[in-house]
Amino acid sequence: MQNKQNTPSSEKKQPKRACIVGAGLVGSLWAILLAKRGYQVDVFERRPDMRKAGAIGGRSINLALSDRGWRALEKAGIADKIRQVGIPMYGRMMHSTTGELTPQPYGKEGQAIYSVSRGGLNQELVEIAESFKDVNFYFDQPCWGLNLKTANPIFVNNGESKEHDYPLVFGADGAFSAIRSSLQRRPRFNYSQDYLDHGYKELTIPAGENGEHLLEKNALHIWPRGQFMLIALPNLDGSFTCTLFLPFEGEESFENLKTDKQILAFFQKYFGDAVPLMPTLLEDFKENPTSTLVTIRCSPWDYNDQVLMLGDASHAIVPFYGQGMNSGFEDCSLLDDFVEKHGEDWTTTLHEFNASRIKDANAIAALAVRNFIEMCDRVGDPAFLLRKKIAAHLHKKYPDHFIPLYSMVTFSHIPYSVAHQEGKKQDALFEKILALEGIFDNWQENKHVDKIFLEMYSE
Amino acid sequence: MQNKQNTPSSEKKQPKRACIVGAGLVGSLWAILLAKRGYQVDVFERRPDMRKAGAIGGRSINLALSDRGWRALEKAGIADKIRQVGIPMYGRMMHSTTGELTPQPYGKEGQAIYSVSRGGLNQELVEIAESFKDVNFYFDQPCWGLNLKTANPIFVNNGESKEHDYPLVFGADGAFSAIRSSLQRRPRFNYSQDYLDHGYKELTIPAGENGEHLLEKNALHIWPRGQFMLIALPNLDGSFTCTLFLPFEGEESFENLKTDKQILAFFQKYFGDAVPLMPTLLEDFKENPTSTLVTIRCSPWDYNDQVLMLGDASHAIVPFYGQGMNSGFEDCSLLDDFVEKHGEDWTTTLHEFNASRIKDANAIAALAVRNFIEMCDRVGDPAFLLRKKIAAHLHKKYPDHFIPLYSMVTFSHIPYSVAHQEGKKQDALFEKILALEGIFDNWQENKHVDKIFLEMYSE
Repeated sequence: MQNKQNTPSSEKKQPKRACIVGAGLVGSLWAILLAKRGYQVDVFERRPDMRKAGAIGGRSINLALSDRGWRALEKAGIADKIRQVGIPMYGRMMHSTTGELTPQPYGKEGQAIYSVSRGGLNQELVEIAESFKDVNFYFDQPCWGLNLKTANPIFVNNGESKEHDYPLVFGADGAFSAIRSSLQRRPRFNYSQDYLDHGYKELTIPAGENGEHLLEKNALHIWPRGQFMLIALPNLDGSFTCTLFLPFEGEESFENLKTDKQILAFFQKYFGDAVPLMPTLLEDFKENPTSTLVTIRCSPWDYNDQVLMLGDASHAIVPFYGQGMNSGFEDCSLLDDFVEKHGEDWTTTLHEFNASRIKDANAIAALAVRNFIEMCDRVGDPAFLLRKKIAAHLHKKYPDHFIPLYSMVTFSHIPYSVAHQEGKKQDALFEKILALEGIFDNWQENKHVDKIFLEMYSE
Repeated sequence: MQNKQNTPSSEKKQPKRACIVGAGLVGSLWAILLAKRGYQVDVFERRPDMRKAGAIGGRSINLALSDRGWRALEKAGIADKIRQVGIPMYGRMMHSTTGELTPQPYGKEGQAIYSVSRGGLNQELVEIAESFKDVNFYFDQPCWGLNLKTANPIFVNNGESKEHDYPLVFGADGAFSAIRSSLQRRPRFNYSQDYLDHGYKELTIPAGENGEHLLEKNALHIWPRGQFMLIALPNLDGSFTCTLFLPFEGEESFENLKTDKQILAFFQKYFGDAVPLMPTLLEDFKENPTSTLVTIRCSPWDYNDQVLMLGDASHAIVPFYGQGMNSGFEDCSLLDDFVEKHGEDWTTTLHEFNASRIKDANAIAALAVRNFIEMCDRVGDPAFLLRKKIAAHLHKKYPDHFIPLYSMVTFSHIPYSVAHQEGKKQDALFEKILALEGIFDNWQENKHVDKIFLEMYSE
């Protein structure tokens, strides 16, 4: 990285200045959007420059981009570029214990979520941000926290900590945010961290001999096994990144997978069709970390008309709806909408963003935990599959009145909290429909399906 | 305080040794129970010795002791002594806006909760603990936290921090526990802090000219006003300590009580009969702090077979069920039961305590928030009063099968989680009973009351 200036802008008097803590996906995207509005932006990152250091350690290698994320990337002007290196996944591909495959589309024809490389996307965002004259990145400078009296951030540079003066500070420093740790000491700051009893571990299915994908490329593969599951997302180089989600303790658990024999027996038993595709399974399993799955909720997100947290810093969620990055990017585009509306009146912008967005973050947090159960357990259930089919029918026939929950979350910009509420209404609808006599035999001819729907949705 | 030794026992090799962080109510009681089991105990406290420094600042002056607390005090051998200085409160005394009084008994005849002085009780507990040869107190030594590698506590003494080596460490250091702050950094530590939108402020009704109580002495007085309330508990010197619970923001709120005129107008409007009894109202209101009301939940409470949190450190609750101290004291007596059962097998004791107690702490946390609504709003409601009467009737007629929720929490040792579940069943019962035709006119003659009860409780 070449700095266009030698000193952070905090040392200079400028009217439209902001500091962003964290050069991850959300921090670097927000730098671009702020720069487009004429702000001078300093971004501080505790890690080394990822463009020199290689991939970011310990975190998932690929992510699923969907409509909320795309909208933000369009605002940043890089959606087209990213789309070229993303792999569309049009649906889930379920693998049974005997290796049978069942495809399940995510939405209407043509609708897809996109597998993208986290590292590649992040580097792209940093490059674009840095191409703005007034954006500067400062790597290797961990944030120590906020000085609550001045609302200024404190960064450590070469072992020395220094407070930097900014009129605006954005905490995009992730699930273990230093900014949030400082705010947590304030009275009346509500906060929770909830861990699942499950952990995860990343594994690999390498590309075939000619660089080809050894499983269907345009799908998200799931091996649902009740209390645990394996998933796989395609990479551009022909490989798949697999993630095993498994309880830490219990009969089938990380605790009980210690020896090579135990690991192999477990994989043979539950993921028999995947084992031949995973030549480095044992090495990967033993070398890769077992990571935790946490949901972070807090409020308020703003402080002193000067500070705002974004992304995982204020609302980390579990990955089962593929909405972690997408919700963080949506933070950026919604905040940008407020800036468009209120100009430099940041007091109003911060308050309105805080007042409107927390309920949506709480909704997607709840939906993400719920989807874990769906992915592990329910995707193989005949009632679940029938519901998906009937939902697709209703969506096609009544597109203005019925959008399946998954589509509202993934392929729309409907606020998460509205989608969550609608989802509950849909649960009630399908409880009635799936109780109809003979529904499993022939739902297409059953006139009560539409009748029940119309009664419930015309109220 | 005279130390019987000049160095903490951490410097000496002794087999049955423990450290307690915090010399508050729970910490000093637990020191007594451990000493009775032959342990050498060092208690570290961040504050000065309260016996020299006077009252503890910023916290409630009196508390309501009930059966769970008494049981622990009996184990410590000081129940009788404390009972002599406690004031029994046999029920609530509701004050209407026009000054009418309505008494409402807490339980059966003779059952009472006891108003005791927090400071007096704490000093008593410290005195008794210190009378054991092997118990030592170290005041003015704040805990900096735990060294997570060794599970040893670090204390600051005269500006120097030092790690002390103990085989057992009990964190009884309150709602803002340093021990818990350290544990919170561990992966898979679940934690939440939830603040109410209400704050509280203590005020005073002094004794009459001859030291007499100016309100009924043997009652807990409540001025319920919907979204807020005033309460008053009797002190031995004839005074009452009043607490105003009020939203921080909104129409009637602390935010809107700034000037003398505003404060007086508010009190005149809502607490007219109390104002003449409060000559220092304005001074008290302006000088006393406005405090927050927080619920703390976390898990696990134990660490490394060596550390355990007790009382507010692991489960701070709001004060509306009068169970904060009582639940902390119950921690001590239940833990003592485990020690009796498992002897020096602390691994088992800590695990069993952790596995069995957290659900009860979560239950009383939920009940305490719920009781806030009851005290503010429902105590004046005819349906609520009728329910209380019918509940008393059922309790008298079927004492083995029906114990009102308040009595289960206050006058029994039924686990809080069981009481919470039973309470939900009672809600369902009274929903049916209060829907009976004519029930408000003459419930005593209504044969359906007992019939509904017997149907529901014979299942």
